[in-house]
Amino acid sequence: MIDNRETIKISIDTLGSETSIANIIKGLNTSFLRNDNYFFRLFGPKEKLNYELKKFSTLKENVEIIDCNEFVEMTDKPSEVMKTKKNSSMFKSIISILETDSKAVLSCGNTGALMAISLLNLKTLDTIKRPAIASIWPNVIGESIVLDLGANIKSDSQFLIDNAILGTSLATTLLKIKTPSVGLLNVGKEDSKGNEVLQKASHELSALDAKGLINYYGFVEGSDISNGLTNVVITDGFTGNIALKTAEGTARMIQVFLKNSLKSSLVSKLGAFLASFALSSLKDKLDPRVHNCGIFVGLNAPVIKCHGASDHIGITYAADLLYMLLNDNVNDKIKQNISKQVNS
Amino acid sequence: MIDNRETIKISIDTLGSETSIANIIKGLNTSFLRNDNYFFRLFGPKEKLNYELKKFSTLKENVEIIDCNEFVEMTDKPSEVMKTKKNSSMFKSIISILETDSKAVLSCGNTGALMAISLLNLKTLDTIKRPAIASIWPNVIGESIVLDLGANIKSDSQFLIDNAILGTSLATTLLKIKTPSVGLLNVGKEDSKGNEVLQKASHELSALDAKGLINYYGFVEGSDISNGLTNVVITDGFTGNIALKTAEGTARMIQVFLKNSLKSSLVSKLGAFLASFALSSLKDKLDPRVHNCGIFVGLNAPVIKCHGASDHIGITYAADLLYMLLNDNVNDKIKQNISKQVNS
Repeated sequence: MIDNRETIKISIDTLGSETSIANIIKGLNTSFLRNDNYFFRLFGPKEKLNYELKKFSTLKENVEIIDCNEFVEMTDKPSEVMKTKKNSSMFKSIISILETDSKAVLSCGNTGALMAISLLNLKTLDTIKRPAIASIWPNVIGESIVLDLGANIKSDSQFLIDNAILGTSLATTLLKIKTPSVGLLNVGKEDSKGNEVLQKASHELSALDAKGLINYYGFVEGSDISNGLTNVVITDGFTGNIALKTAEGTARMIQVFLKNSLKSSLVSKLGAFLASFALSSLKDKLDPRVHNCGIFVGLNAPVIKCHGASDHIGITYAADLLYMLLNDNVNDKIKQNISKQVNS
Repeated sequence: MIDNRETIKISIDTLGSETSIANIIKGLNTSFLRNDNYFFRLFGPKEKLNYELKKFSTLKENVEIIDCNEFVEMTDKPSEVMKTKKNSSMFKSIISILETDSKAVLSCGNTGALMAISLLNLKTLDTIKRPAIASIWPNVIGESIVLDLGANIKSDSQFLIDNAILGTSLATTLLKIKTPSVGLLNVGKEDSKGNEVLQKASHELSALDAKGLINYYGFVEGSDISNGLTNVVITDGFTGNIALKTAEGTARMIQVFLKNSLKSSLVSKLGAFLASFALSSLKDKLDPRVHNCGIFVGLNAPVIKCHGASDHIGITYAADLLYMLLNDNVNDKIKQNISKQVNS
């Protein structure tokens, strides 16, 4: 059988985070075994990368190493990185989108720097003014896409509308939902709630809904994110960031309470032991290695920022997501959605 | 022994929510047994109130009933209630602060209406421009005060500073912390994070800290609320409301996951049975009947809004909180803190 599928190539920034190169390679290998037309352009120390690749002979034939030892520190200021870190693994991996056939970037490094370098070099798609950071959130009945989680802290109604288009395209690709419902995060569901920016955005989204361009639900509240009321939840980057971190903090707190409770007596310790399989499945559902993956969307190439302390599972998850985004041509979908809106 | 303590009188709005009068009376009785110089002025249907009071003979001698059948609906608009519902149990209970020796109000009714009626009639304390809604949040190491949770959706730096003063006074009274630390909610801890309003507020809070008037920590993130990094977390009412509801939704989602996981096999069911005592203590820690209690602070009299579906436990908790606030003269503390700030 002839394999007609095109190779999907992405660039990996392997430096600048707590995640070890061993974990990055192990994670990429797992994704490669599932997505065998994948190819990785690895930016990092050649010797170390080659050493780790020895363990994975098939993967080794499907990577290119660009030797690179300089990297962006977690404490580097985005504005300075642009001038001083042009030889860093992060900068070079982004630039490779312009200079090679790499179609996306994966990094575990400094989020602010990654966004700044990406925005400056990859530029935004068509009418999109600013990219957003999106993530897949677990909810009671499945998963939803939430954006923006921190790219734009200023609230602006056009930006919220852009988020609706970007979020819809992501949900179609990543959640396989044909016409995903979109909720606009507010302090209540009634039409009268919220400030002028939200009122204006809601009005315009309703108009797009009437034209069949967006499946707009209306306002949703913080609790609706985990209820799964809508497939997509849109908000500004300030509110989204607070919501994300509050949810993460709450989940961590409950896990601490649960652990302490279950250790409180011998009987409950035994109970916890018997229920350990069930409890570990709960832990998987809330795994921050998976859910802390930020998708930069609205750029001319998708960029994924893995959690800075990801292990191989987080890397595999991120690489799988990028594969889905590229295999399903998410940016073409976004462009189509934008052009429908512009021409409506 | 002569009891020199003054009777502490509060007004209770017993209508306009899902909470039954039976639960309200039962809840008040539990608080009364702990705080025996408490006196309740009950606004609601006389016959029904008397019927429920029959069960609690000592309490019965420490209440006054103001017969009232009209009430504010959950769907009533705050602006209209002011004109059309002057004979409602809610309106009358607030007015009783001006006309009787009641010092505070407890209601389970419509939050927006309760805030509007309270603001118009009770007015704000000294230099405080707008009251805030505060709540006690559980965290990994104890509890913290978070405000504003929805009174003011506009962000304004003076309002954030007022929240710091109000939150400090509440933490001193309710958490018994002498100089509570105050964190300003932002998307990161670095000084450069956030918008102009946050920058300005942080700058002014640092100045108040330098004068020893506030124990200002600096910026905190969403995850720090449940970390317990600071005793008080201040934010605008839009962000606070989103954070609160996101946290509640996350806690509910995890409880659903946990319940489903523990039912997934016979062994885990047995484990859950053995650990049931420990698991119910976890449930208590996250009890929304307790944590959904909103304290309206910054008014000339404290008002507490219980959750609309509170049972007797929620009512007891709210009545206990009001007792602490009045017994400790929280409003005098707030006034002292304001005057120190004004004269600094």
